[in-house]
Amino acid sequence: MDKLVIFGHKNPDTDSICSALAYADLKTQLGVSVEPLRLGELNPETTFVLNHFQVFAPRLVHGVAPEAKEVILVDHNERQQSASDIGEVTVVEVIDHHRIANFETSQPLYYRAEPVGCTATILRKMYIENGLSIPKSIAGLMLSAIISDTLLLKSPTCTDEDVKAVQALAEIAGVNYEEYGLAMLKAGADLSDKTPEELISLDAKEFSMGAYKVEIAQVNTVDTNDLLARKGELEALLNKVILDKGLDLFVLAITDILNSNSVALVLGRAAKAVEQAYNVTISDNTANLQGVVSRKKQVVPILTETLEKFEL
Amino acid sequence: MDKLVIFGHKNPDTDSICSALAYADLKTQLGVSVEPLRLGELNPETTFVLNHFQVFAPRLVHGVAPEAKEVILVDHNERQQSASDIGEVTVVEVIDHHRIANFETSQPLYYRAEPVGCTATILRKMYIENGLSIPKSIAGLMLSAIISDTLLLKSPTCTDEDVKAVQALAEIAGVNYEEYGLAMLKAGADLSDKTPEELISLDAKEFSMGAYKVEIAQVNTVDTNDLLARKGELEALLNKVILDKGLDLFVLAITDILNSNSVALVLGRAAKAVEQAYNVTISDNTANLQGVVSRKKQVVPILTETLEKFEL
Repeated sequence: MDKLVIFGHKNPDTDSICSALAYADLKTQLGVSVEPLRLGELNPETTFVLNHFQVFAPRLVHGVAPEAKEVILVDHNERQQSASDIGEVTVVEVIDHHRIANFETSQPLYYRAEPVGCTATILRKMYIENGLSIPKSIAGLMLSAIISDTLLLKSPTCTDEDVKAVQALAEIAGVNYEEYGLAMLKAGADLSDKTPEELISLDAKEFSMGAYKVEIAQVNTVDTNDLLARKGELEALLNKVILDKGLDLFVLAITDILNSNSVALVLGRAAKAVEQAYNVTISDNTANLQGVVSRKKQVVPILTETLEKFEL
Repeated sequence: MDKLVIFGHKNPDTDSICSALAYADLKTQLGVSVEPLRLGELNPETTFVLNHFQVFAPRLVHGVAPEAKEVILVDHNERQQSASDIGEVTVVEVIDHHRIANFETSQPLYYRAEPVGCTATILRKMYIENGLSIPKSIAGLMLSAIISDTLLLKSPTCTDEDVKAVQALAEIAGVNYEEYGLAMLKAGADLSDKTPEELISLDAKEFSMGAYKVEIAQVNTVDTNDLLARKGELEALLNKVILDKGLDLFVLAITDILNSNSVALVLGRAAKAVEQAYNVTISDNTANLQGVVSRKKQVVPILTETLEKFEL
């Protein structure tokens, strides 16, 4: 068999990096030749994780077609979130925990999606199903991915399976997951040295919703005011991105990980959809989204539904 | 939780019927309230199977929205192969072994696809993963589905996992799978009392391929001449269906299950795509497709590839 590569979405987060590494380990244990890759720079949280467990980052690539003919996707499926040349390769497997959209194959494939908080939670089940044991450092990476995606088990996306996985993986990794998790989230929430360009792209994803092109970025922080103090330059930049990419809507969710709320910076000609979706008023381009911490569960579905019926 | 329903594709084949019944049994064993449904008439093969194992057919419905808000799909995912009102319900699970296309959700879901010969092969793994045992009659249905989809393990879609599943299920069901399988396939191949309408719709599926709308139907027979003798009336009917549905291409594959070959009746303005795809000449609207027995593996991918580049 030819070489296979595994990668998560663009603007990789901790799950996209760690699940690529973990699934590569699982496949290698099964005797399959694979290489984990990444489609973008590491964020500070993921850098903290890889340093902590002393694992090398996947190799950075800007396209996957030169790497392999067949690829495995983790933590995403939508075309616009994947490698720009994804159309030139064959997707033979997907392991994911998101909705399915803008995804199409001409051949049957292995597709495993479960409505849990994190890809790594599914991978842990796959280790068990295959009778394989999880190496200590890989357990640490998988633990970190779940803590990251569920905001230390507090996000509404978190399921019983994620909680069970965190407990089991913490034991293998030999860490106190609450202490470690808070340190990890804080490392990711230190945004003081980030440029506006970095802030809006660290964890940004594009979506098609009804007839509209939408980008939703999220930054985690322990004090939303740190970011709101830089609102002017963020707005200028968002307007530029909207023009460049032809977006109808850009939502930058600034999420307070200690209090589990978000303030959204909302720009673009379809901004009113956010008012309709959450029954809030946008003032000065910002809206308070009380209790919203999960893009997947609390932003994408409700905005999709609103934009499918929305008229400019 | 509200009531859930489970169903396979329109023009149901043995896998669509038997996998709906089997997955309903699995879910019921897990304490989930579900009802298996079917979207069309039983074919003679499936009727033989249900009679043999003395299982009632799933209830026939013409739409699923009046039945439940949340649904589970087995043996298909493409919108045009599903219930006509599929857009009005939420798909919470899919168990399938086909390509993924024309499928989109707004919420994460449980999606399990594997590139094996039959949905029932995946379901067998799920019984094992959940530590459940397969009732004798259900094992018979699952066995029948695999024999049907793999033409008694002879189709190129058949994998080692399907072979293993057939052996294990035959033991539970208490049948000699070779004898039983041949009797079952012959029951399905008795087409003498079928009207032309029945022949072209018994196992027909619609596809979008590039810019073209394609329908591919398949009938299994032990003598292709039985059907070719009725070519005139079949052609007249296919031309009518092409007009009614606005199709660009209709391929009726007449498959000789004893010799593993097909003769295709090819009509529609994109008929030349079949010549290109298989490097054959269509004469009198028919083409010999040597060694072709699997729509999924030997027809859909190659026609999709050809039609994506095809110009009328």
